[in-house]
Amino acid sequence: MMDIITKFKNKRVIYLSPPQTLAFSFLVFIVLGTILLKLPIASTTYISWLDALFTATSAITVTGLVVVDTGVDFTVFGQVVIMILIQLGGLGLMTFAVLIVMVLGKKIGLHQRVLIQEALNQTSIGGLVRLVKILLIFTFTFEFLAFIILSLRWVPEYGLGYGMYTSLFHTISAFNNAGFSLWGDSLSGYVGDPIVNLTITFLFITGGIGFTVLADLWSKRRFRTLSLHTKLMLIGTLVINVVSMLLVFTLEYTNPATIGQLSLGDKIWASYFQAVTPRTAGFNTIEIGDMTTTSIFYLLMLMFIGAGSGSTGSGIKLTTFIVMILATLSFLKGKHETVVFHRTIKPHVILKALAIIVVSLIFIFLTIFTLTITENASFLMVVFETISAFGTVGLSMGLTGELSPIGKQIIILMMFIGRIGPLTLAFTLAKPKKSNIRYPEDEVFTG
Amino acid sequence: MMDIITKFKNKRVIYLSPPQTLAFSFLVFIVLGTILLKLPIASTTYISWLDALFTATSAITVTGLVVVDTGVDFTVFGQVVIMILIQLGGLGLMTFAVLIVMVLGKKIGLHQRVLIQEALNQTSIGGLVRLVKILLIFTFTFEFLAFIILSLRWVPEYGLGYGMYTSLFHTISAFNNAGFSLWGDSLSGYVGDPIVNLTITFLFITGGIGFTVLADLWSKRRFRTLSLHTKLMLIGTLVINVVSMLLVFTLEYTNPATIGQLSLGDKIWASYFQAVTPRTAGFNTIEIGDMTTTSIFYLLMLMFIGAGSGSTGSGIKLTTFIVMILATLSFLKGKHETVVFHRTIKPHVILKALAIIVVSLIFIFLTIFTLTITENASFLMVVFETISAFGTVGLSMGLTGELSPIGKQIIILMMFIGRIGPLTLAFTLAKPKKSNIRYPEDEVFTG
Ligand SMILES: [K+]
Ligand SMILES: [K+]
Repeated sequence: MMDIITKFKNKRVIYLSPPQTLAFSFLVFIVLGTILLKLPIASTTYISWLDALFTATSAITVTGLVVVDTGVDFTVFGQVVIMILIQLGGLGLMTFAVLIVMVLGKKIGLHQRVLIQEALNQTSIGGLVRLVKILLIFTFTFEFLAFIILSLRWVPEYGLGYGMYTSLFHTISAFNNAGFSLWGDSLSGYVGDPIVNLTITFLFITGGIGFTVLADLWSKRRFRTLSLHTKLMLIGTLVINVVSMLLVFTLEYTNPATIGQLSLGDKIWASYFQAVTPRTAGFNTIEIGDMTTTSIFYLLMLMFIGAGSGSTGSGIKLTTFIVMILATLSFLKGKHETVVFHRTIKPHVILKALAIIVVSLIFIFLTIFTLTITENASFLMVVFETISAFGTVGLSMGLTGELSPIGKQIIILMMFIGRIGPLTLAFTLAKPKKSNIRYPEDEVFTG
Repeated sequence: MMDIITKFKNKRVIYLSPPQTLAFSFLVFIVLGTILLKLPIASTTYISWLDALFTATSAITVTGLVVVDTGVDFTVFGQVVIMILIQLGGLGLMTFAVLIVMVLGKKIGLHQRVLIQEALNQTSIGGLVRLVKILLIFTFTFEFLAFIILSLRWVPEYGLGYGMYTSLFHTISAFNNAGFSLWGDSLSGYVGDPIVNLTITFLFITGGIGFTVLADLWSKRRFRTLSLHTKLMLIGTLVINVVSMLLVFTLEYTNPATIGQLSLGDKIWASYFQAVTPRTAGFNTIEIGDMTTTSIFYLLMLMFIGAGSGSTGSGIKLTTFIVMILATLSFLKGKHETVVFHRTIKPHVILKALAIIVVSLIFIFLTIFTLTITENASFLMVVFETISAFGTVGLSMGLTGELSPIGKQIIILMMFIGRIGPLTLAFTLAKPKKSNIRYPEDEVFTG
């Protein structure tokens, strides 16, 4: 496909910048996925074009919001289409393109490298091919091992065929942070099951931490020698997950609709699972809509923050959040530079973090604004659905199935924006304008 | 009072930084106000210590959230106490101190100038005394003229005594963006009255635009020669008010509970009033809780943005919002500097805007989080109450009167934080730490 675009380019018929190509590739697969899911052999019941489009978008953007019951309304053919879309969308279309090129033995050109760079959010081209190789090795190794473990758990329960099939589906869905499940209540049937809890969360935390982090860990292995980015991601992930688990446990402890009536062990498993899933995995083992308003509000923040850069997850990204907090602390302490782990964070990175947050908030604001007009639902449900789509999380308080046609279209757009990254979209829309004129500084009073 | 602090300082008994002195002064007046409002002669009915504290805080922070009916439950004595607290809090305690010093003919020392600088959010000490003089002339001129105009409207309606009294009360409350009214339904009785609409909104828009802007306009008078800050404030205020008016008009046009049943003229007046009041004035001419969810959500944003720097209003400030948007646009266009009106905005100002927004969001997040635990109200009502307190706006969907004792204490704290400025508080808490060690830069991937 990339070759086609390149050919078009050479003929000067169309010219697409790397972010535009990325967005365009996603669009092509959304269209293909929609058509495949709309085929009679894909579903067991009538599915509208809009619902097929919604499902295809939800799969390729690894969101997991569903308007039809994946395990019931789709045939195995439909489910396999969803599984392939998830793997394509999660690993990144560009990475797949590289794989094809590598398999065909072709040399990877600069233009393709720039595309991969965009997809993986890398700042240097060197070592990209190596990174992609590591990425693919990691992916298939992790997925294979998890598939074996889950099969050992589910084949005895469901028999060989469905047991292996459901293990494969949930493995791919988990590692790619898609959150699609063959069961209507997601993984609620395994709320206290250690194997399912550990395997699924290990998959989506690994997939969500970002491939650069995995590659760095793979090649260095000692904390002190790790890159700043890796250190921030590891410590940030640990801290936010532990804090979230304690909060969910405390806030839900006496809630009879969620974990109140579970045993202490199951309470802990459920708190752990619901604490780690909102930063884009999207599976759930308790009913999200039944959680306390305080928990749900806290989940909103987690969904907004999201996973790691260059990962199968979305959101503003954990490092964006950390950079923002660090820059603020430095400002409050009167420091001229933002320093962490004896390294200075570039001003440009801070400015980028600000831009990501501003652009994200604008998209979220516009979506909530519109949905409060089109949907007949509580404000909290609308906010939750919006941020879930933005972070390609896939958790819902129950609004997804009730969305109006316009509401579905808005959420489709939001999942798309959330996955290609609000900044990528904004870059695509903004016209770069370089200026060499320097203007004098002037004071503006803020706050 | 400042003299006392200075004396203490010289004796090394206590040392307070300028922001701490500012916060401390507010606290002293809150305590004084609480005691005065708790006196039997202040109220016509029993008022708890907590409610007296709430009212005193609401008045001195010019918020206008009320737990008791100002016009009914307080005597004229109590109302005059509230009026004085509003004038003190709105004009700034420091400004009053300067006034006293000037009247006494004393020379204003550097320490006092630094305090005024904090209160007015000025970055240079030079010209501060002149600014304060202009400020006081402006204030009393505007208040006197408005008092005359409102008296001409209300004396015929209410008679000489109450007519003049209510005109004075609403003049002071409006210019200082306090939003306190002697009437339980605020200014709903004058929803279509041109004199009341124009006088009140002129007062609070003028008071909320910031004294530096007024001083700049006073001395320059031609747009081209105005400072960047003044230009941004004037254009920003115009744009945001026009857009807001059109939105409120459109969103509420068919809402029978608000403007749906009013004449076209009254619809326009009501849209205008509700569009300009949320950026910290806090009066209302229609019931806020009856507005559409979409309007209320939009109002949340206006309340968060707030008024101008060094004004009688709060919020993150309109210029903080504008700087953030401009910095984001510059980043998206690949520019190295943020330029507007042929002037460059300093990186430090952008960093400060980021810090203000982050710190504000943290305070708002913690407040909403806690209130969802302590209060039995819808999520939207809780969010609205929180941001109204943060922006010292004073609009409410009706939660204020229903707040639990803990809820009242949290809102008291939030009004205080909102008025002294979240950054001032954060500065007070953060220990400045200068470092001369320079660390190498390292890459962090965001978004
Ligand atoms: K997901
Ligand atoms: K107010």
